Amino acid sequence: MEMYFWIAACHMLFISLWIFAKITLWKEFGEPNPVWHWQCLQGTCQKQHYNETVSSSPLSLPTCRLSCSDAAGLWPKPTGDVSVSNIFQNVNFNSIDVVPKQSNSPSSKLVREAGKVFKEQIQATIPRRFNPKGGKSLLVDVDIKNPSFSRLTLDTDESYTLKLSETSDGRLNALISAQTFFGARHGLQTLNQLIVFDDLKGELLIPSEALITDKPAYPYRGIVLDTSRNYITIDAIKRTLAGMGASKLNTFHWHITDSHSFPYVSKSRPELSKYGAYSPSKVYTDEDIKQIIKYATVRGIRVLPEFDAPAHVGEGWQNTGFVTCLNWQPWQSYCVEPPCGQLDPTKDGVYDVLEDIYGDMIEQFQPDIFHMGGDEVNFHCWKSTPNIAEWMQRKGLNVSEEKDLVQLWRYFQDNALQRLDKKAKRNIPVVMWTSHLTDPEYLTNALPKDRYIIQIWTTGTDAQVGTLLENGYKVILSNYDALYFDCGFAGWVTSGNNWCSPYIGWQKVYSNTPEKIAGPTKKHLVLGEEAALWTEQADSASVDSRLWPRAAALAEAVWTSPANPSWEAAEQRFLAHRERLVELGIGADAIEPEWCLQHEENCRIGAKLNTDTKFN
Amino acid sequence: MEMYFWIAACHMLFISLWIFAKITLWKEFGEPNPVWHWQCLQGTCQKQHYNETVSSSPLSLPTCRLSCSDAAGLWPKPTGDVSVSNIFQNVNFNSIDVVPKQSNSPSSKLVREAGKVFKEQIQATIPRRFNPKGGKSLLVDVDIKNPSFSRLTLDTDESYTLKLSETSDGRLNALISAQTFFGARHGLQTLNQLIVFDDLKGELLIPSEALITDKPAYPYRGIVLDTSRNYITIDAIKRTLAGMGASKLNTFHWHITDSHSFPYVSKSRPELSKYGAYSPSKVYTDEDIKQIIKYATVRGIRVLPEFDAPAHVGEGWQNTGFVTCLNWQPWQSYCVEPPCGQLDPTKDGVYDVLEDIYGDMIEQFQPDIFHMGGDEVNFHCWKSTPNIAEWMQRKGLNVSEEKDLVQLWRYFQDNALQRLDKKAKRNIPVVMWTSHLTDPEYLTNALPKDRYIIQIWTTGTDAQVGTLLENGYKVILSNYDALYFDCGFAGWVTSGNNWCSPYIGWQKVYSNTPEKIAGPTKKHLVLGEEAALWTEQADSASVDSRLWPRAAALAEAVWTSPANPSWEAAEQRFLAHRERLVELGIGADAIEPEWCLQHEENCRIGAKLNTDTKFN
Repeated sequence: MEMYFWIAACHMLFISLWIFAKITLWKEFGEPNPVWHWQCLQGTCQKQHYNETVSSSPLSLPTCRLSCSDAAGLWPKPTGDVSVSNIFQNVNFNSIDVVPKQSNSPSSKLVREAGKVFKEQIQATIPRRFNPKGGKSLLVDVDIKNPSFSRLTLDTDESYTLKLSETSDGRLNALISAQTFFGARHGLQTLNQLIVFDDLKGELLIPSEALITDKPAYPYRGIVLDTSRNYITIDAIKRTLAGMGASKLNTFHWHITDSHSFPYVSKSRPELSKYGAYSPSKVYTDEDIKQIIKYATVRGIRVLPEFDAPAHVGEGWQNTGFVTCLNWQPWQSYCVEPPCGQLDPTKDGVYDVLEDIYGDMIEQFQPDIFHMGGDEVNFHCWKSTPNIAEWMQRKGLNVSEEKDLVQLWRYFQDNALQRLDKKAKRNIPVVMWTSHLTDPEYLTNALPKDRYIIQIWTTGTDAQVGTLLENGYKVILSNYDALYFDCGFAGWVTSGNNWCSPYIGWQKVYSNTPEKIAGPTKKHLVLGEEAALWTEQADSASVDSRLWPRAAALAEAVWTSPANPSWEAAEQRFLAHRERLVELGIGADAIEPEWCLQHEENCRIGAKLNTDTKFN
Repeated sequence: MEMYFWIAACHMLFISLWIFAKITLWKEFGEPNPVWHWQCLQGTCQKQHYNETVSSSPLSLPTCRLSCSDAAGLWPKPTGDVSVSNIFQNVNFNSIDVVPKQSNSPSSKLVREAGKVFKEQIQATIPRRFNPKGGKSLLVDVDIKNPSFSRLTLDTDESYTLKLSETSDGRLNALISAQTFFGARHGLQTLNQLIVFDDLKGELLIPSEALITDKPAYPYRGIVLDTSRNYITIDAIKRTLAGMGASKLNTFHWHITDSHSFPYVSKSRPELSKYGAYSPSKVYTDEDIKQIIKYATVRGIRVLPEFDAPAHVGEGWQNTGFVTCLNWQPWQSYCVEPPCGQLDPTKDGVYDVLEDIYGDMIEQFQPDIFHMGGDEVNFHCWKSTPNIAEWMQRKGLNVSEEKDLVQLWRYFQDNALQRLDKKAKRNIPVVMWTSHLTDPEYLTNALPKDRYIIQIWTTGTDAQVGTLLENGYKVILSNYDALYFDCGFAGWVTSGNNWCSPYIGWQKVYSNTPEKIAGPTKKHLVLGEEAALWTEQADSASVDSRLWPRAAALAEAVWTSPANPSWEAAEQRFLAHRERLVELGIGADAIEPEWCLQHEENCRIGAKLNTDTKFN
């Protein structure tokens, strides 16, 4: 009798579990019996009714793309050869190993960490609670020629080769060969994009063979994030870095302070953040910064600190005696946006504070280049400050002459640079924004080209661009008409829309290649490009949707840098890459209805149409 | 010996806990020794250096606002009296009780649920892991005159009175009096805004006395969310409802289906979502809908289903034989955006399917009004469909005459309405979008005003608005030039920006009151307003930042509906309300630097300045 009870109980338990599993799986990754599948027809993946009797092997859209899309759907598109098999193997997630060939080198530790990121990214494509069935093991060998090299510089070789094959005993092997860790991790990212979860099969699929060679067209591919106008949480910064890594961007330029708040906790000058942070918790401690740098490095990203001066300072400096115009009103007279604030170059003590800040930053960030900001100095602020006017008079400078005020600014810049070099213990390359100092009459004296890289934020067609290139300056492009991702929202000092409206679509970002701005004969002077997110009107809640997927459009503009960029040709790959970002937990904005993702090439005016589908 | 060990161990444990608590508190809710505090000076809260020797009781900004801001900082601003004491009491979070006076009524259960929301919202203001010290108990009595009334209608009395006082034995008492649960829950929301966490004191503060009377200017205050162009998760819908409740919006108009996808699981016609959902998991099941309705009702919100027809259908209908033009190309010829799709009004069976859908929706939503959509019918689609053309010919209608095509549309609408009424078992009020049918020549015959409420989506100055009001129609305003929150982003069928660019700032939303659109003599015909989020370019990741805080600007435009709306006067309260939304876990967009929140009235061109701060 008792036995029957146990058999019945077991039976019921089994049935319950089966129902639970079925409901769970259905909600989580799809119905076991698909009604749709995708077929590669005439170069696009087309959604088709699925009929079990016709085909026993339905393809999901991500799988279809691997064999059907341009460059296997990779983003950014490799600059070298892409050869990918259209035969797929089932990979066992639990048998994936990433192994550095050179153990005990600085790179090997990074490779192991990058291997963890690699596996996390695969896991992110698998629906929660789903346990993929069976599959083959995948060994990823990472072979680095210069394994002692562990810091990214402007000369770092980021190239890689990825070779995927089956071994004779049925295992899968990937070989990533690179000069440096930074190339190798790009190879891992490419491999990531070749492994997809097929929700129709319920398997993790990978092409059985592939050969890809790749390297970036430009060495500097960045995002500048402002964490002063609004505080950005560590988590939001990490999401930004995760998206960058997945898109092969390599520079996180951290505009860490500004007039609005001083969240940077300087070890030498803690009073600056004590008074200048929005709240005691809205700060970046040494520990936070270490965490961010580690997170970035594993993803192949340099963290480039900017300490913007002599303008764009304010909160935090109240009690130093070195700031002038702080929150002077009406602000329009003394700066471009409230609150105003500028350092007083005539106070000797200001350079001691700067030296301390530079010293702290150099020690923490160990940057290969440093950003000194240097934009939007307001001369009316300085000349309205009595002690500055007196000082200029004593030095024989005229406060009414622009050139004399430029002289004062150069005095500041030269002194600040000297303090930076002292702490860097070398002439560290410095980046500065375009400004009055980069005007033709001041440029070559004020900012010699062997010391300064100029970051261009004016429009791509501004005459300054030509001046800089003619004079042989290395430049980074952040022309606001294509790369300022804060444009287009509401006004905040007034009604209407903000100053650089309209909103910049990804199509414009994609087409803004260095060659288009600098021309074919000067493009070698362009180090790369950088998208900017100034956060007057964004914070941790919206940083993802402002940056993504547009920053990925930038990524291809500088990594692949097609000679004749066509967003139309890139659209389907781009939509797919946006989905990858979402899988990583990044709140990337939707740019089209999901219908357009599922129905390739059907959503555009003038799109290439495969068939006249009318009346069908 | 052993005793000493325990004493030492206890001592160390105590010290460790103390250090841990101190670090935790510091990171979580502020440094114990504040360097800033806020003082109410000349009607604004001003940030001041805090000096312990000058004042022993620093005020945090939220506390300062309660006594210093217009209408105690409430959003939306009450339409009646607001009297709030500037003496604050410490409330004990664990001793807050919300008690319905009328137990065992339909309302009492809702009040208890609303009480839980009330407490959750207070908890959301308290930093994680912080345990407020001591404080007084707070009893919230909720007195409802019509406790049997538990469904919102257009006639529901949403007024309330809130009286806050101290009892003789030192407890705090709030009395909320209302005609209905829907008024009472607004009273709870107002009380929520009067309870703030003061991070300088580490206490939950409430004014010791208050008297507020309030009721909305307009009965219909909504958001229409499209869940077809992109799927919106249940969680994102709940966040939307949470923001609505906190802002006293009362209608969640659910544009649940469209041509792009059919996520609505119809109990009678499950094949529509089986074929029409983007994936088997991107659906709304009966259980999901029940959950959403419950969540909404507790927050005073009706869930108004829209089944848009005869246009705006497509995916899901493939196998019915009742849809025409589905994904016809070039789409520009047959609809306003891809994919095209329209029901075929000549097929009798289409009305049977509609009747089933209506029946399912009426049963699930129990709506007081129903939305039949009815916008953007494309005549070229119908006349290009051979069997429709033949049918028209048989009926003596001319496919080249607009008026005859309108006749066909009316045939559809009349039949559909009849099926709806049959399922509603009454002549249920129907909302329809402005369209060809609302043109002056068709309006009164096609859509009699005793059956139809018209939702206006054309511009606020469109001639149709005048026609509708002249003819005595009740209207809901969603004029796209102020209330379409999808405007301003990139193009998606082309480059450039989307059709209704530019982005609409909150200032414009705020100023778009019914009186400004309809004029003082016709505003009584306006039921209210509704912001629209069409989701071609938004999904769960961006729905929060698209809707919020702009939908809160709409809330004040229809709840308070100031005669001369001034966004400048409302700005500081609005910034503070945006912070409330963020505390509730809603990713509301940042509209200004936090500096402007902390420095009231300092950020505008032409802002009222308290002092000439120059040279100070």
